[in-house]
Amino acid sequence: MSVLVAFSVAPSGGGSESVGEIVAEAVRVVRESGLPHETNAMFTNIEGEWDEVMAVVKAACEAVAARAPRVSLVLKADIRPGAEGALTAKVETVERHLRG
Amino acid sequence: MSVLVAFSVAPSGGGSESVGEIVAEAVRVVRESGLPHETNAMFTNIEGEWDEVMAVVKAACEAVAARAPRVSLVLKADIRPGAEGALTAKVETVERHLRG
Amino acid sequence: MSVLVAFSVAPSGGGSESVGEIVAEAVRVVRESGLPHETNAMFTNIEGEWDEVMAVVKAACEAVAARAPRVSLVLKADIRPGAEGALTAKVETVERHLRG
Amino acid sequence: MSVLVAFSVAPSGGGSESVGEIVAEAVRVVRESGLPHETNAMFTNIEGEWDEVMAVVKAACEAVAARAPRVSLVLKADIRPGAEGALTAKVETVERHLRG
Repeated sequence: MSVLVAFSVAPSGGGSESVGEIVAEAVRVVRESGLPHETNAMFTNIEGEWDEVMAVVKAACEAVAARAPRVSLVLKADIRPGAEGALTAKVETVERHLRG
Repeated sequence: MSVLVAFSVAPSGGGSESVGEIVAEAVRVVRESGLPHETNAMFTNIEGEWDEVMAVVKAACEAVAARAPRVSLVLKADIRPGAEGALTAKVETVERHLRG
Repeated sequence: MSVLVAFSVAPSGGGSESVGEIVAEAVRVVRESGLPHETNAMFTNIEGEWDEVMAVVKAACEAVAARAPRVSLVLKADIRPGAEGALTAKVETVERHLRG
Repeated sequence: MSVLVAFSVAPSGGGSESVGEIVAEAVRVVRESGLPHETNAMFTNIEGEWDEVMAVVKAACEAVAARAPRVSLVLKADIRPGAEGALTAKVETVERHLRG
């Protein structure tokens, strides 16, 4: 199954380090994965086969869990066979419709 | 990593079968998993170790993907070491605070 | 617009009070709203017209924001005209399909 | 309450039009709002006061509901007093930590 995943992982319930510093650890894991990805203000988008994407999400959660007692993950996935390139194609489709 | 996961999987973009019938396939997968679970009007909650819970979520997505061209997954996870029993404990904690 | 909403509101980035105690404040707001609702381990489900449901969600966020410097809200909504009773009807539909 | 919201609205349960065309209607509503926003492959991010942001989210849902019998909304919000500029500041903070 090909998936385009948006996920956000963060400490919940607090701690002494800045959230930004811990979240950066999760983003580092994504960047080192080699999969197509994009980080925006609310989510990191990542694209690939289910197993490889979910391995990256798990590693990102583990990176946060190593520095926080409790971790919250929010994830949204679009699952479509053979939807390679969806990370950029979906925005282009919307833009094309908006140009009319 | 112990996780308490709420997930919702459904066809997106339409098809000829009723959504309820397809969603029931996903719930069936959860029930046959043997993991603690609860289905409500919006999400199915399931509890266990990351790998076993995510295997069930994947199988539920595959069950829907077998009957729909495009599938949408929404997932929220609370990750906490040794949080066994969170499926019922979290509601009890809130109720205790409300009783005051 | 009739909506069935699942939402979760919690402090993010920490603080001195227990999360359960603060989350209970949000649940209290929902219970006092008079709208059909149900709280489970991960989300509170609530049903009604868009404006009345979103007023409750806002009040629940304000109750948490009064006790935490930073608040995280996750919300999923099913929007359907005239879908009154969806809070219980959706689970019944799935159960009916599972009984076969 | 200042909020940074990521939301995704789409038809659920199908119809005859392309999803991209309908989603473009929702994005058009956001662009005409005048609020800071950014659309990526999975979510549209928008920033402002709770009431003005939620008015835009409602109008976007109404635009989709006008062309689809059933609509699904997924929304994540960060609520923080005086967090103006969070749409760009959050990514910069993560980048700064990654540069070390």
